[in-house]
Amino acid sequence: MSKNSLLSVASKESIEEDASCLASERNGLKQLWCDSCDFARKALEMGRKDPRKAVYALKMGFALALVSLLIFWDMPIEDVSQYSIWAILTVIVMFEFSIGAMFIKGFNRGLGTFSAGILAFLFAGLSILAGPWDKIVIVISFFITGYCASYLRLYPTMAPYDYGFRVFVLTFCILMVAGNRNGGYVLAILTRLVLIALGACMCFVINICVYPIWSGDDLHCLVVNNFKELATSLEGCVNGYLESVNYERTSSRFMTQASSDQMYLGYKSVIESASKEQTLLGFALWEPPHGRYRKLHYPWKTYVKASNAVRHCAYTVMALHGCIMSEIQAPPEKRRVFYEELQEVSSEGARVLRELGSKIDKMEKLGGFKNILGQVHVAAEHLQKKIDHKSFLLVNSESWEVGSPRKDVEELDDPPQQHLGLKCLSETSIYAHKTQTQLPDEDFPPMQNLRRLVPWPSSFCLVESDGVLVREDEAKTYESASSLSLATFASLLIEFVARLQIVVDCFEELSEEAEFIDPDVVVLTKRGGIWTRLVRSLRFKK
Amino acid sequence: MSKNSLLSVASKESIEEDASCLASERNGLKQLWCDSCDFARKALEMGRKDPRKAVYALKMGFALALVSLLIFWDMPIEDVSQYSIWAILTVIVMFEFSIGAMFIKGFNRGLGTFSAGILAFLFAGLSILAGPWDKIVIVISFFITGYCASYLRLYPTMAPYDYGFRVFVLTFCILMVAGNRNGGYVLAILTRLVLIALGACMCFVINICVYPIWSGDDLHCLVVNNFKELATSLEGCVNGYLESVNYERTSSRFMTQASSDQMYLGYKSVIESASKEQTLLGFALWEPPHGRYRKLHYPWKTYVKASNAVRHCAYTVMALHGCIMSEIQAPPEKRRVFYEELQEVSSEGARVLRELGSKIDKMEKLGGFKNILGQVHVAAEHLQKKIDHKSFLLVNSESWEVGSPRKDVEELDDPPQQHLGLKCLSETSIYAHKTQTQLPDEDFPPMQNLRRLVPWPSSFCLVESDGVLVREDEAKTYESASSLSLATFASLLIEFVARLQIVVDCFEELSEEAEFIDPDVVVLTKRGGIWTRLVRSLRFKK
Repeated sequence: MSKNSLLSVASKESIEEDASCLASERNGLKQLWCDSCDFARKALEMGRKDPRKAVYALKMGFALALVSLLIFWDMPIEDVSQYSIWAILTVIVMFEFSIGAMFIKGFNRGLGTFSAGILAFLFAGLSILAGPWDKIVIVISFFITGYCASYLRLYPTMAPYDYGFRVFVLTFCILMVAGNRNGGYVLAILTRLVLIALGACMCFVINICVYPIWSGDDLHCLVVNNFKELATSLEGCVNGYLESVNYERTSSRFMTQASSDQMYLGYKSVIESASKEQTLLGFALWEPPHGRYRKLHYPWKTYVKASNAVRHCAYTVMALHGCIMSEIQAPPEKRRVFYEELQEVSSEGARVLRELGSKIDKMEKLGGFKNILGQVHVAAEHLQKKIDHKSFLLVNSESWEVGSPRKDVEELDDPPQQHLGLKCLSETSIYAHKTQTQLPDEDFPPMQNLRRLVPWPSSFCLVESDGVLVREDEAKTYESASSLSLATFASLLIEFVARLQIVVDCFEELSEEAEFIDPDVVVLTKRGGIWTRLVRSLRFKK
Repeated sequence: MSKNSLLSVASKESIEEDASCLASERNGLKQLWCDSCDFARKALEMGRKDPRKAVYALKMGFALALVSLLIFWDMPIEDVSQYSIWAILTVIVMFEFSIGAMFIKGFNRGLGTFSAGILAFLFAGLSILAGPWDKIVIVISFFITGYCASYLRLYPTMAPYDYGFRVFVLTFCILMVAGNRNGGYVLAILTRLVLIALGACMCFVINICVYPIWSGDDLHCLVVNNFKELATSLEGCVNGYLESVNYERTSSRFMTQASSDQMYLGYKSVIESASKEQTLLGFALWEPPHGRYRKLHYPWKTYVKASNAVRHCAYTVMALHGCIMSEIQAPPEKRRVFYEELQEVSSEGARVLRELGSKIDKMEKLGGFKNILGQVHVAAEHLQKKIDHKSFLLVNSESWEVGSPRKDVEELDDPPQQHLGLKCLSETSIYAHKTQTQLPDEDFPPMQNLRRLVPWPSSFCLVESDGVLVREDEAKTYESASSLSLATFASLLIEFVARLQIVVDCFEELSEEAEFIDPDVVVLTKRGGIWTRLVRSLRFKK
């Protein structure tokens, strides 16, 4: 019985296991179904956001269906149907999203196929000459081709032609195989070349004639977007610094927190767009004049140059964000002293970037805005003056080796806080003491009080009652490092303003080379209604 | 005659033109020949530098030659020879440089082929059912497949499977075409699948058995290299700053100058290695345990995490380099004041990085070096104290709103330089005046002299005799911005030291997870000669 009962228990368990298995399977299926629904929803969303993607897919499907008609060809030349796969293959590998990319792929494919054809001719001749040894010639030719192509493919400057090398080896092998099987190398090679050309033509016609998608457009938008992203990021960084945004300083969480910030994503996208820009530039240079870019040899390189200048600024914004993320933090109270000036510089700087971005977007010259940097320079000067006036907040002048300049002042008043030692500002509001001592400056207490009250980041806060012992000497060193970091932030912001000049220079170069319209001319003729458009288009066509 | 003479002149000209054409053609050919030689030399050099590339090419050639033997197969199944191209094609597209990359490509190819096979079966069945309408079914199936695959390919998370989608469409089309032509869908599909599997097997066997190239190795080396590059870059930046390296500030030349610097290339390679690391990580995760990385689920991700921490430091070095490139420069004389301290921090910081890099390279734990950061922290404290003592050099204390603390000192001595106005330091060496006034500090003249002598970057230098008029007020503002930039540099360097802690934490995490050996254990047994190796290998296998 005990055995039976054990068995029954076991079977019960197995039934329960089965049930739980079923349940988990059902759950798994449910999960799978949910995931699939989610995926489908997101895929639809993608099409709604960027309809060009749906259009591209439609074009691809259409091209493929059209080329597949070749399969049913059974008129004069029977071979067409047999080798139709070559045209289909060409469409599959050549039909790219943008027209520039398609041109490059086409060029790669063309070059690869052509040189493979020539090489195949040569080796075919050789194998025929070799007579009974033809098989050895063919195997050796495979080895040599494979070796050379794979070796050269790894050569650094050959990276863009990687695809061409693969096509080359592939085509060579196929031609050799086909030629060997039929014995008719010439016919095999020629039929294939004609069919590849046919597939390529179909790609060009459909991709260019039906709703063309240009890389140049994408590059234009990317550059404009960089200006706007950096402006947002700059404002975000300065605001974040003034509001003393704090990341939790626990190893990995620290980095993830920072990386979900809007200000981080802003300058990150600017910095990381470099490689995307290079890719788009490569495509755009292959594209014929089109749309708003009617000039032959349109200065796409200058677009990228302007974007590089923006990136040069973005590195400063990155350093600003580094101040927020840094281990050594200035106390919030000191930051607030420079509130207005920092805000002014940041909003003026962002305004300049946005202005330039929208000018590029509208393809307008600076026109009346010649001195676009005027206001931001004034703001930077205000900030610098404020720093000059308040720089006692940033340094520890008591340790000056030229003698203690504030000794006399200190001897005059003996504040009651002197014996408090270092104290955390978050606990003891500095403003509470404002009325107890005379204030030479309206918005900040005098230095000798401040120096004793200002904290090193909270972990170093010393409150005597806690009984924590840290050498005052060491604590002072940390304290002045903390204050100096505010100077760093301000100084980096001023550097940002200085670098804006390069951006403006690059913009002007671009506006000249790309023949942007002059907004003043349009303004002059705006009264005339139809006239405006005429002038615009004339300038465009020039 | 005049006509004749004209003609003769014309013919002469044309002959001359021809001659020059020939000469230029000859020059062109010569150039082409030189270029080709140069290319061949560089290609050979590449193989000598990294023999793995030559080995890879040899393996590829060997695999291709081996698989080409299938062409001559004429035993039991005739189809093998006819469809041998499928095995060849698989080798061409799957044979990648590293084993991880080959696994991924193989997975892509397998998945693409398999799902294409299933879909082709389905549509084949449908077209047979459709009877006379079979052609329409086939064309529609092409359209649907092309549309869906191209649309999903653009879905962001599908980017790594891009290759799989292409293989999918390609295989589907080929199967449909072949099946349609012969009417035997099942045989066509099965033969191809078997041949593809054969090609894939050959790739795996040759690539793994003959001199395997692992992405994990590359990742390991890349991370170690990042530590070393950043160390060099840090030293370069600090030295460059102290030696007041100056870039010519003329638009584009400025950027190219900076970009050829060793210090720039160092941190740039660290920052730009991010995407390469991600690629290698993707490959390495697919690789089985091998060589020195015997652990299952080797912590490759922690390697990348450590590298991310190094990159976090690299951003500070980038900001340091930004100080060298900045528009607002501190005068060289002031920089020299902090020479020793800056040097000390930079060399200690670089030492820590190099130490950690070589520890990773040797796969050793920190061991006795537990307090690896001790010395660099001391160095940073020295720097901070020096800043405290000399911070009067960094700020313009005359404008302090709390009252001019140095007024009393100034009233005591009326130096003869007071009426010189602002003067360029490069012309008037500050040390020339050293003996004329009393020096409270050994290595630097007193503040009130200094403030008048310190220059704004040369373009703003004011020498009264030149008759250039700039408001003294404005000049002062520029001047203090320039001094503050030195504070920025020092503060960024201290921030760099603070960030080193994260690197050390990540290193310790990595050394635990990857089970690095403990150097202390080895040291203990080093006396025993053979014993050492035994202990090492035991620890390795654990």
